[in-house]
Amino acid sequence: MSIRTELPSGTPPAIILVEPQLAENIGMTARAMANFGLSELRLVNPKNGWPKKGVREAASGATHVLDAARIYATVPEAIADLHVVLATTARERGQMKRVLAPEAAMVEVAAREGQRIGIMFGRERVGLTNDEVSLADAIVTFPVSPDFPSLNLAQGVLLMGYEWRRASGRAELPFSGALLSLPATREALLSLFASLEEGLQAAGFYPPEKREIIARNMRDMLHRMAMTEQDVRTLRGALRALSRRAKPPASD
Amino acid sequence: MSIRTELPSGTPPAIILVEPQLAENIGMTARAMANFGLSELRLVNPKNGWPKKGVREAASGATHVLDAARIYATVPEAIADLHVVLATTARERGQMKRVLAPEAAMVEVAAREGQRIGIMFGRERVGLTNDEVSLADAIVTFPVSPDFPSLNLAQGVLLMGYEWRRASGRAELPFSGALLSLPATREALLSLFASLEEGLQAAGFYPPEKREIIARNMRDMLHRMAMTEQDVRTLRGALRALSRRAKPPASD
Repeated sequence: MSIRTELPSGTPPAIILVEPQLAENIGMTARAMANFGLSELRLVNPKNGWPKKGVREAASGATHVLDAARIYATVPEAIADLHVVLATTARERGQMKRVLAPEAAMVEVAAREGQRIGIMFGRERVGLTNDEVSLADAIVTFPVSPDFPSLNLAQGVLLMGYEWRRASGRAELPFSGALLSLPATREALLSLFASLEEGLQAAGFYPPEKREIIARNMRDMLHRMAMTEQDVRTLRGALRALSRRAKPPASD
Repeated sequence: MSIRTELPSGTPPAIILVEPQLAENIGMTARAMANFGLSELRLVNPKNGWPKKGVREAASGATHVLDAARIYATVPEAIADLHVVLATTARERGQMKRVLAPEAAMVEVAAREGQRIGIMFGRERVGLTNDEVSLADAIVTFPVSPDFPSLNLAQGVLLMGYEWRRASGRAELPFSGALLSLPATREALLSLFASLEEGLQAAGFYPPEKREIIARNMRDMLHRMAMTEQDVRTLRGALRALSRRAKPPASD
């Protein structure tokens, strides 16, 4: 009897850096991965050795990703256990491969339940070789400005992590805002309108023939504020305070 | 007669860094902006002076963004001429403001024809103050992992630039791939199938009762290759070469 090991659904892709050179880039890659819930880093033949001085500082707390990173001598070894491999490239390679935008690529990846995916990133200066690209199933390229297409390595990793998190349904925001608060009832709001309009009328604010138009415009503005009960109370209080101050002192 | 100045449609948002400290972050911000076609950088009261040593190197060629950057003493001055301001924050601020994901925010921004938009980013360690956030129309926050929510300043700028470029319809990929090549005609493909199946039959490859099933499975595989005319020619040539080699030498 064999034991079958199921991968968790929507397994995060492994990030594979091929011959990365700068400690800063590797560290910032680890941080970018941690930001979007990726944790599997594979380094192929890091230039000038591993570990590198300065890489832990650049990771800004994401050292768990560095500590778990696996080092490989060659790309075939680094991708051997994977089921699908994507290669990121900035330039056309003359290869007959599908080319995907980051979002489309990650939608496909997120749909691949139980499959191990890897995304390859090339050397800082020259990227991946054509041979390395030929080991991938498809290419991912970034929708950068043609005036300035050179994307930093860790920035590319960040974009893939961001799009994976969105595609795999994990991209809830850490908090939401005012629209979850209950709007004021119409009774409270209309009562505020009435108080405001009576006060402005008493203060001689409206030119006689324009009262209706101005009052309606102000109601439109106030509607756009999407007031909560608390907001209505605050404005009523402000209105009362202004009206009290404006009253002339009682004469003896 | 007055001269009316129209802004170009889909004006890129200005990026506003409030009291940024590290040259590296400002330089990488400039680079991230250039990557996605943003060019308007505003710095409010940069910590420890401006310009900063090392900022041009960190910009990796995007020095035009640095050179055009405008320096302001306060946030109100930096946002005075803008029509809409977004504030990026990582944490809940107890403010009754709309909270948007980067994509939703940039879709709104891209729809605002002829309006000047600014996106504020706070200090590296403490972000924006609550007073500064209160000067914004809405909040943008990033869908980061709660286990590691601290996003580098330039990485946040990159994500906003990326989403703006997508939302404003500028996110075409620098190149596309194989699917633009014409698939082989069915005649060429079926002819290849026939050659392959005859060759395998002659080579005794098929178990007698399984020929049909195996042949159909192979056709399925070959269909998934989405062969072009050139691909078909290549495979036909490979097939012929293998068949020639396999033939026993003619006997005398």
